[in-house]
Amino acid sequence: MKNFNYSIPTKIFFGKDQINALPDQIKKYGTKVLLAYGGGSIKKIGLYNKVIKLLKDNDISFFELSGIEPNPRITSVRKGIDICRENNIDLVLAVGGGSTIDCAKVIAAGISYEGDAWDIVLDPSKIKSVIPIASILTLSATGSEMDTGAVITNIETNEKLGTGNPEMAPKFSILDPTYTFSVPKNQTAAGTADIMSHIFEVYFNNTEGAYIQNRMAESILKTCINYGRIAMDEPENYEARSNLMWASSLAINGLLTYGKETNWSVHPMEHELSAYYDITHGVGLAILTPAWMEYVLDDNTVDKFVEYAINVWDLDRSKEKYDLAKEAINKTREFFISLDIPTTLREVGINEEKLEEMANQSVRIRKTIGNFKPLNAEDVLNIYKAAL
Amino acid sequence: MKNFNYSIPTKIFFGKDQINALPDQIKKYGTKVLLAYGGGSIKKIGLYNKVIKLLKDNDISFFELSGIEPNPRITSVRKGIDICRENNIDLVLAVGGGSTIDCAKVIAAGISYEGDAWDIVLDPSKIKSVIPIASILTLSATGSEMDTGAVITNIETNEKLGTGNPEMAPKFSILDPTYTFSVPKNQTAAGTADIMSHIFEVYFNNTEGAYIQNRMAESILKTCINYGRIAMDEPENYEARSNLMWASSLAINGLLTYGKETNWSVHPMEHELSAYYDITHGVGLAILTPAWMEYVLDDNTVDKFVEYAINVWDLDRSKEKYDLAKEAINKTREFFISLDIPTTLREVGINEEKLEEMANQSVRIRKTIGNFKPLNAEDVLNIYKAAL
Repeated sequence: MKNFNYSIPTKIFFGKDQINALPDQIKKYGTKVLLAYGGGSIKKIGLYNKVIKLLKDNDISFFELSGIEPNPRITSVRKGIDICRENNIDLVLAVGGGSTIDCAKVIAAGISYEGDAWDIVLDPSKIKSVIPIASILTLSATGSEMDTGAVITNIETNEKLGTGNPEMAPKFSILDPTYTFSVPKNQTAAGTADIMSHIFEVYFNNTEGAYIQNRMAESILKTCINYGRIAMDEPENYEARSNLMWASSLAINGLLTYGKETNWSVHPMEHELSAYYDITHGVGLAILTPAWMEYVLDDNTVDKFVEYAINVWDLDRSKEKYDLAKEAINKTREFFISLDIPTTLREVGINEEKLEEMANQSVRIRKTIGNFKPLNAEDVLNIYKAAL
Repeated sequence: MKNFNYSIPTKIFFGKDQINALPDQIKKYGTKVLLAYGGGSIKKIGLYNKVIKLLKDNDISFFELSGIEPNPRITSVRKGIDICRENNIDLVLAVGGGSTIDCAKVIAAGISYEGDAWDIVLDPSKIKSVIPIASILTLSATGSEMDTGAVITNIETNEKLGTGNPEMAPKFSILDPTYTFSVPKNQTAAGTADIMSHIFEVYFNNTEGAYIQNRMAESILKTCINYGRIAMDEPENYEARSNLMWASSLAINGLLTYGKETNWSVHPMEHELSAYYDITHGVGLAILTPAWMEYVLDDNTVDKFVEYAINVWDLDRSKEKYDLAKEAINKTREFFISLDIPTTLREVGINEEKLEEMANQSVRIRKTIGNFKPLNAEDVLNIYKAAL
């Protein structure tokens, strides 16, 4: 196990009607809020009106930034920063899924930065101060509600990049599973794949002796496997929605990473797909994951797949190592199929045309991606082709 | 899953040589420290000198409270409070195991309380303010390094009682597994049993739909089972010591409890044993746990034991329910035996004499203890007798 410094300061108000904690929590930080959200879904479920009423009843003034995109764009970040500067905002409140929260984070970090906000995406070390951020979550997926990162897209340059800062952890997040009852089947599936991918990125890892982290990772993977389909078939199943929601936060808030040396693989590969084709992030991850697993399976990595096979998929431990590994990878693919997620890039409109360009882009910052088995541009291209 | 408000603010500096973080962290809160510790063990391993040097080199003044007992006594708390009041202490730094940290917590909470410190043990609602607390952990067991509770003994009244307050969570804790290398076999065993008991107290529970919490609980139980004996046989095995140390914190920091309605059973029964006979807490827990499990096993609880049998002990799921449950309980008992822990009360010098008095004492505050299967005085007496 590696040394680590643990700090997860975000307060979570979890459960039905926890929205009532909102005014008191906001007032710890001020009375002027930027209300950031995406499209009409929060209006459709009545959440927008509820938030507005709570703010008005408690003399909290607010300014709105709406229309934040599913892969949130730097143009939205810039708009948000302008509103905050003009109105001396105390706290950015994101109401929505991970995209909205990510956008809110970079707005909060960009207010005090003098140059263009894209700079602090390209180079997180330029972030000097961050105003308080809070979230009301409506989609179980990215874990942005309890972590310190954000991913922003620049359409002009075809770039989708992650940034982060410890101060970007929300001060508090309200997680009411009933706000996810209206999430459609395909987004529920993509969100579940996203949560699982966050776990895979740190579970398939070479750090020795991180036993407790590995067992916890398996416990959250099992949660996703147990409830993913249920939440699609019974969208108002509180048990399924609540387990997935808490899984989304725990998968990426640091708990599974502390003590490991991690370096993600599938996310950076997928970010290129989303940047070039604007596809749903979780779908891209689900398509790439089994192809990536098959590609990295070798004598150095097979034991980790055996662990996965036995502890997550309950496969028969007496079988031969490679058989177990391959069976576990098939189980993974079959699980994503059971969630009705497309299994090939072609199904989401991606053909051979830009694969090489995207593969080169994926490694442009570091020469390789991932540390479970480091991948260069050629490896990434092979995985893209295998997923075609 | 129940609603919950999650807040785990303690920062953890985990790993070898993390002690170097001490001066900067203390200075966030002031420059006058009460250094609280137990016997000579921190001197024997050189930790005392290291702490003293770091404090002196960084112009942090300190006053000492030594001799804190294994079941920390209210008399030590009173002494600590006096020193803090006389010297206007900014932070209480506990260096030791759970007993030392518990004592430090009640000192920090008692400074501003005008009456006798035993009052705030009897009635935690009397705690109004708590000065900052920090810890350097030397024993993996109680989890006090990352939680909000403390257990204090009053020898005059034969009482051992828990108290707590959100502000009693340490501001930071330094967890260096090498400080536990010198922990003797019997204390390593008792600590492991204590960690497992904290998990059992919340795992054997009737809250519906807390799937993710149950799987995480199993993952930490597996960690204890995997490393308990190894740490005894190879005291300087860093992997074993680090996994047990992190397990001790995660077992009780709230992670496994949030979303559940919990009410402990075995701890309140054991507290009477420790209060009357001053036995090692973890040994008392290990003796009582299998007897308690057998006593509460019935048609309402058997499914939970089946879950435990399959997910923790990998038992054959095709077997009959009660067979699985009983086999899992036997596995639990055998595990404690494999750690060389006594299995009966007689072995630790407890006979029939005071069983009834202790049973009555255990339920004097609430009429019953536990909510998995509520126990009255007669039930407790039966469990004591079964463990005799």
